[in-house]
Amino acid sequence: MGISIIKIRQSNTEKWGILFQNTIKVFKNQPTTLKELLTNTANYTNNENLGNESIDFNQAEILAPISSPVRVVCQGVNYASHRAESALDNTSKGNVMFGKDESSITGAFSDIMRPKNCECLDYEVELGIIIKKDILKPTQISADNQHEYIAGLVLANDMSPRDLQYKEDYAQWYKAKSCRTMLPLGPILYLLDKDDFKYLSNLNIQLWVNDALRQNANTSQLIFKPAETLTEISEFMNLNVGDLLLTGTPGGVVIKAPSKFLQGIGTWLLSNEKKVEILRKKKAGYLQDGDIIKARIFSDDNKIDLGTQINKIVPYGF
Amino acid sequence: MGISIIKIRQSNTEKWGILFQNTIKVFKNQPTTLKELLTNTANYTNNENLGNESIDFNQAEILAPISSPVRVVCQGVNYASHRAESALDNTSKGNVMFGKDESSITGAFSDIMRPKNCECLDYEVELGIIIKKDILKPTQISADNQHEYIAGLVLANDMSPRDLQYKEDYAQWYKAKSCRTMLPLGPILYLLDKDDFKYLSNLNIQLWVNDALRQNANTSQLIFKPAETLTEISEFMNLNVGDLLLTGTPGGVVIKAPSKFLQGIGTWLLSNEKKVEILRKKKAGYLQDGDIIKARIFSDDNKIDLGTQINKIVPYGF
Repeated sequence: MGISIIKIRQSNTEKWGILFQNTIKVFKNQPTTLKELLTNTANYTNNENLGNESIDFNQAEILAPISSPVRVVCQGVNYASHRAESALDNTSKGNVMFGKDESSITGAFSDIMRPKNCECLDYEVELGIIIKKDILKPTQISADNQHEYIAGLVLANDMSPRDLQYKEDYAQWYKAKSCRTMLPLGPILYLLDKDDFKYLSNLNIQLWVNDALRQNANTSQLIFKPAETLTEISEFMNLNVGDLLLTGTPGGVVIKAPSKFLQGIGTWLLSNEKKVEILRKKKAGYLQDGDIIKARIFSDDNKIDLGTQINKIVPYGF
Repeated sequence: MGISIIKIRQSNTEKWGILFQNTIKVFKNQPTTLKELLTNTANYTNNENLGNESIDFNQAEILAPISSPVRVVCQGVNYASHRAESALDNTSKGNVMFGKDESSITGAFSDIMRPKNCECLDYEVELGIIIKKDILKPTQISADNQHEYIAGLVLANDMSPRDLQYKEDYAQWYKAKSCRTMLPLGPILYLLDKDDFKYLSNLNIQLWVNDALRQNANTSQLIFKPAETLTEISEFMNLNVGDLLLTGTPGGVVIKAPSKFLQGIGTWLLSNEKKVEILRKKKAGYLQDGDIIKARIFSDDNKIDLGTQINKIVPYGF
């Protein structure tokens, strides 16, 4: 049985704790960072460190269960169903990756601020993997040893402003997807027990907009699995304790024009203005101010449940 | 007159100091991070803190003058000469940006390790801007107040493994450009005096391969200037003290197939394998093991000189 870590804000102080049913037990001794918590987990999660302070989950101000700074590495088109709607077949076996700035991170119940000039705001529910120890050189990670490198799981929504992705030369994935509040995380960081790893490839992943189910898949459908993806990343760059790998989204996103067209022949044939015009013409389905997104990741037997995210879309404003 | 900051390694310890001619004066009290140095600059750079320890620049082990963690935000196609060789005209006015992982950072005289399976290794000399204070909300930054937000300048080489950029679906700029050692930085972090800011748009920027001049331009040709770029970034994401903005490279890189073709119509017409084959057929000019890259950024009057980078290409190997 793993541990459901929660981070809250209480009287302007950030605190870590463990969720039991609907009650958060706050740690007596607090780690200052997620790195500290993941490096000395038993020091914090033991019974003696679970103080008397219990907080009702539904009354708490829930924060994203990470620490800044955090590296966010994202996989793209990693489900066949999303590859199909992007006009990509399954013959290409490259593990598409991109970066998302940590500025995008927000809480599981926080408002999502539609970015400036964005009219085509899309969602992408994803399973997030939290790194357990620094990986600073090429490392073989497999089903046998992944428990040494993967600390836990977190529910993530890689929010994607589609018109901003295509309004400039080349695909501006980084700029668009890094906008503030474009990455709700949590509520739970589930620290995996060694026996839990079998669930990695058997979790239901779902997203609703205003109670209509839009995405519904299972992590068994991931093309590049976490272990092989971490192995590949280790060959060219570093990962540190507490970093986040987003494993890609299944089919069911809003965008109608396939990204292969927009980034492919479209780049040659169409001006950036025209691409944005095409996107904005087919606005039905994109998120509107006031819309509510709900997302879940859980196992059939409910032994693993990363909680439910509920975020409201609000207009850009400072 | 600004201050030329240098970071060295001495007996396994990293130390900061100031370069005077060819001599490094090491600080008596050392900052632990660049953030600390930039936040309390006078505390470290005053005469009393310049100890008796002087080190010959040419004998020192020079490190990249930054601290980890550092965010690296890169501008793309920001010189007309590089836009032309990328088959982009100047009518599109979007400020192209992408992220590069800090794993890529290496020293100004360190070996550059050709990434695994890379046969088309390219260079991109760039002016780097170091951030002076946290920018956490939309902020108007202009010629009048940029000295509050820009701490200094650093010479950078955004090394680019072209075949890795195109071997998978979509352009894999992040994966390719984030490979370890793909970002030599330094030797100098030049902290700008308020009077130095006029030089921002009048610095010579040059790169040689084995003593043959390949890139030769002036920062007057930057399309999106640092102040307007920081203003735009502030509208959607955060920057922190010590972060790095790379302002793009001028013309003269090796790649012959224009990136607009490879990422545009090429994505539709050609398999990833075919794109890589095209790149690898025209190998002349790409960096080979043993090649020496030299780069410089300096003002005509030599009042600003970010030093000379000299890096050797070595094979991938762990």
